[in-house]
Amino acid sequence: MQTQQIRTDLALEAHESIDQSTTHIHGIEVNEKDFKEDQVHITTVSVTTKNAAKALGKPMGTYITIEAPALDIPDDGSHREVSTHLASILKELIPDFENEKSILVIGLGNRDVTADSLGPHVIDNLCITRHIILEYGTAAYDKSRMHSISSLAPGVMAQNGMETAEIIKGVIDQTSPDIVIVIDSLAARTLHRLNRTIQITDTGIHPGSGVGNHRNALTEESLGVPVIAIGIPTVVDAATIVWDALEDFSKKSHHSIDLHMLQDDCSNTMLQELNNMYVTGKDVDAIIKRLSFTISEALNMAFDEIEA
Amino acid sequence: MQTQQIRTDLALEAHESIDQSTTHIHGIEVNEKDFKEDQVHITTVSVTTKNAAKALGKPMGTYITIEAPALDIPDDGSHREVSTHLASILKELIPDFENEKSILVIGLGNRDVTADSLGPHVIDNLCITRHIILEYGTAAYDKSRMHSISSLAPGVMAQNGMETAEIIKGVIDQTSPDIVIVIDSLAARTLHRLNRTIQITDTGIHPGSGVGNHRNALTEESLGVPVIAIGIPTVVDAATIVWDALEDFSKKSHHSIDLHMLQDDCSNTMLQELNNMYVTGKDVDAIIKRLSFTISEALNMAFDEIEA
Amino acid sequence: MQTQQIRTDLALEAHESIDQSTTHIHGIEVNEKDFKEDQVHITTVSVTTKNAAKALGKPMGTYITIEAPALDIPDDGSHREVSTHLASILKELIPDFENEKSILVIGLGNRDVTADSLGPHVIDNLCITRHIILEYGTAAYDKSRMHSISSLAPGVMAQNGMETAEIIKGVIDQTSPDIVIVIDSLAARTLHRLNRTIQITDTGIHPGSGVGNHRNALTEESLGVPVIAIGIPTVVDAATIVWDALEDFSKKSHHSIDLHMLQDDCSNTMLQELNNMYVTGKDVDAIIKRLSFTISEALNMAFDEIEA
Amino acid sequence: MQTQQIRTDLALEAHESIDQSTTHIHGIEVNEKDFKEDQVHITTVSVTTKNAAKALGKPMGTYITIEAPALDIPDDGSHREVSTHLASILKELIPDFENEKSILVIGLGNRDVTADSLGPHVIDNLCITRHIILEYGTAAYDKSRMHSISSLAPGVMAQNGMETAEIIKGVIDQTSPDIVIVIDSLAARTLHRLNRTIQITDTGIHPGSGVGNHRNALTEESLGVPVIAIGIPTVVDAATIVWDALEDFSKKSHHSIDLHMLQDDCSNTMLQELNNMYVTGKDVDAIIKRLSFTISEALNMAFDEIEA
Repeated sequence: MQTQQIRTDLALEAHESIDQSTTHIHGIEVNEKDFKEDQVHITTVSVTTKNAAKALGKPMGTYITIEAPALDIPDDGSHREVSTHLASILKELIPDFENEKSILVIGLGNRDVTADSLGPHVIDNLCITRHIILEYGTAAYDKSRMHSISSLAPGVMAQNGMETAEIIKGVIDQTSPDIVIVIDSLAARTLHRLNRTIQITDTGIHPGSGVGNHRNALTEESLGVPVIAIGIPTVVDAATIVWDALEDFSKKSHHSIDLHMLQDDCSNTMLQELNNMYVTGKDVDAIIKRLSFTISEALNMAFDEIEA
Repeated sequence: MQTQQIRTDLALEAHESIDQSTTHIHGIEVNEKDFKEDQVHITTVSVTTKNAAKALGKPMGTYITIEAPALDIPDDGSHREVSTHLASILKELIPDFENEKSILVIGLGNRDVTADSLGPHVIDNLCITRHIILEYGTAAYDKSRMHSISSLAPGVMAQNGMETAEIIKGVIDQTSPDIVIVIDSLAARTLHRLNRTIQITDTGIHPGSGVGNHRNALTEESLGVPVIAIGIPTVVDAATIVWDALEDFSKKSHHSIDLHMLQDDCSNTMLQELNNMYVTGKDVDAIIKRLSFTISEALNMAFDEIEA
Repeated sequence: MQTQQIRTDLALEAHESIDQSTTHIHGIEVNEKDFKEDQVHITTVSVTTKNAAKALGKPMGTYITIEAPALDIPDDGSHREVSTHLASILKELIPDFENEKSILVIGLGNRDVTADSLGPHVIDNLCITRHIILEYGTAAYDKSRMHSISSLAPGVMAQNGMETAEIIKGVIDQTSPDIVIVIDSLAARTLHRLNRTIQITDTGIHPGSGVGNHRNALTEESLGVPVIAIGIPTVVDAATIVWDALEDFSKKSHHSIDLHMLQDDCSNTMLQELNNMYVTGKDVDAIIKRLSFTISEALNMAFDEIEA
Repeated sequence: MQTQQIRTDLALEAHESIDQSTTHIHGIEVNEKDFKEDQVHITTVSVTTKNAAKALGKPMGTYITIEAPALDIPDDGSHREVSTHLASILKELIPDFENEKSILVIGLGNRDVTADSLGPHVIDNLCITRHIILEYGTAAYDKSRMHSISSLAPGVMAQNGMETAEIIKGVIDQTSPDIVIVIDSLAARTLHRLNRTIQITDTGIHPGSGVGNHRNALTEESLGVPVIAIGIPTVVDAATIVWDALEDFSKKSHHSIDLHMLQDDCSNTMLQELNNMYVTGKDVDAIIKRLSFTISEALNMAFDEIEA
């Protein structure tokens, strides 16, 4: 069966998919840590060769995945334990973070499309400091050293008539941040990862990824500054669900069935209808609001801590 | 294959499902009208015997379905042609509508859950007249005869701690409407009916129907006044999609496969995960807003016309 | 100068207004407590005679005012110190609160009018337990004794075509709560009380009070159960501001000016234009959201504590 | 009395203020047109000399004001007559508009502050074409010649940590529009102009103007392309209302009162409290939504018409 049908923005899932079918690939390193008391499992996938990147369908770089099965359940502390892990990861992943940095946080996605609204919601709760520091200095916060934080929720091309990349490039040219952090809604392959998984990567955003399907890359290469991407899967492609069910069924029924037949069948209107459809939970509106708060708190925690 | 897996709130789909597998059932009458220039197809399913009701899984009564394939596409006139058909159907279905009536319109569902927010959104755009007529008479509108319109968006049990039916009964006792019209978001079986179909029925709302899964009935029997229900399918159950795909595949691959095997398999975690998941389009937020306007305009048109 | 121009929903302000101009009135008792570390000042005005009620323009009963000057400033803990004081006051004011009660919380006002949206916002964050307790008992919460909480945001007459009182009466008849708590947005006389003051009273809601100007009373007399009202002033009437400025000016300029002249002047278009206008801060949208959280936390705290 | 207390973003009001107190100023031309059937009055104030600009407190340029007293009243056609006049004015004011232009529309203001949300709301309803034309050409719209429309709602400095001007400059550098149109919420001096007046000017946006108080200019000089600004007054400064009332009173009572006394009085806490307060109507949320639709329709009408 071809993997072309399978869409996932998670490197972890892409790796699982390969891992099951082939032998070990040179250039992919996987490290796992389990934090039992926090119900948090962290997997780091490092892709270090071009061959590995091709096999995985993801660019070379580091992909850190926080799996927190309780993340989609309401919690009085807004899952502060997850925010704490995410803040630690960010502080390690952002280069030279112990020195004062100017950081631009981009909330990708469409505020008016629930499953794509994670990025804009994260921006809403960030502590923004750049304009205060520029006017009054860090003394306004009673600190000697601080990161300078700015943010933008640029909207999507259908709203603006502009590529998100055009807007971000323009803003970078004018405000010269040292680092860009991009928040995005992702598509997962499996339902149990929905709204319970956070992927952090230093590879930025690549065309075709995310719920909003960005056409242009947001990477260090295209933007001129390091780009950290933080994503949470909020949807699973409907076609992926059906495809996986068929494959599952094919295995269980011990029929060696040619699934290509189905795919090539032009009369298969169901698969056509499934295009642009996704599977999500009924409480997605409330979950996205809670998740965005966990992420924004992680960013606020990470940005706030800089030793004097 | 058992029909228990298949969930649809549309009598039309329930009938199609039966129609394919069995012979004609006594007590079900189907009439169809096609309005080519409007791209509107109207099917009336009359269920007149208890046997037929049992076979269909829907109570005895009249189910009118407007299918309008263009309904989910943005339109400058907000699909006024569909509003006009819906208004005509309402004027025929509401008993004794040529005389002045006091009408209570209920917008069921959760305003904060996009796929369940159709009802509250319809209420937002209704022309409400009851309080004006009570205080100033119909003269306030320069009319001698008018319907008196009130409305309520009661929210859902998780928000209120009360059954929707309790709230509505209480309001009916206090304000004594002649007729109740209930607006609800439905679940369809097939994707091509999503957001393109309007069902109008004189049977009210029955337990387990709708996206919000109401537990108590809203019917003439339970409320004491005639109840007209207007529903639009905004979601398809994810399990239904997968099930239909498997069945489709089973037919196409010419294997006589025992689908019960799959269903009974306790290790089938995918089907378990699919519970409470639904399939919807990415633009569901915008579609719901537009659909609610088409419905509210139909109600405003129907309520406004009463001959002197 | 006549007091007819002056509109305030705060008994504290009504009392100040009288206090300055006349001698002590029998039947009004005032007690004050200051909580320095919390920046909270609590004043209890008890109105015990009909004469005093008439002089004050407020019904007989207890009016407790929490003044917290920092309340309109963002705070990491959402002003938990104020929530704690409010919770204590509620536990004392609600009769027989040490025993299990069924409590219906009503969020008055219009969700779509920022200055009138406090009530609906408070409802959004309440812990609702009635439906769970009815179905599974208090065991669902691992408790032996619990208050049963339900809520409703009924909207306003212009949206529903029904008096808010009609809706609430109907819901009380169906669900038989022991106590009703009503949350409302109020009008203050002075700007420095705006969004910094909470009034709690056992007299309920009276016609003409609140930002939304309810026409029917919500009192123990009209609803048949005790009614506690919690209100925060979110607006000052624009006419009141101008009138007070003129009076202030009149005093300062040492002219004995006949302000009635101005009031009676039919050509005084400014005062006419000021009708239905109010004075508010630019950040009212954000303040209302924060205040509603402080109130809902107080209710959650009060409702949660019941000794076994 | 000094004019320093008086804040208005409307050139028309600034001119009225001068007109009453001084003789005719060279360099200010005023033309008025009345459209009785449309209930629309259009005044063009041309400021052609530096002296006149100084006297008026507004830069040299053309200021066109549409006064439509019915504009704040709900209307089935969303006041299409006003949209039509605004479209005509835009087509005359935009240089070389009969040829294809690339137009960037900026919605200034804070979406979460009702009185400042006009700009973002206008953007929501615009027909955006740039991305379609770039990818498929004007053929996608069955036209040979079209304006290319893009848009941005950049938010405010407190949200972004960046000057709005920085963001807009960056976006202009990347996307090279021929013209920028900026939509903003304004402050008026008098209540009867609130939500009933539209000002169109070719001078752009100047520091300190608008509800959001932008610090940097958005003008042809600062952005490098012509800037048309469209503004509607949604608030009146509370201090202005009080000041005008005092002045009015001072005249009516025939006392020659020294208003400076009041202003200089440090103990005048009321005027201090009035800072950052504004006067607005209770239905401002609904009015802003309706007004934004009238404006966006005018833009859509203007942009749509280009002769082949």
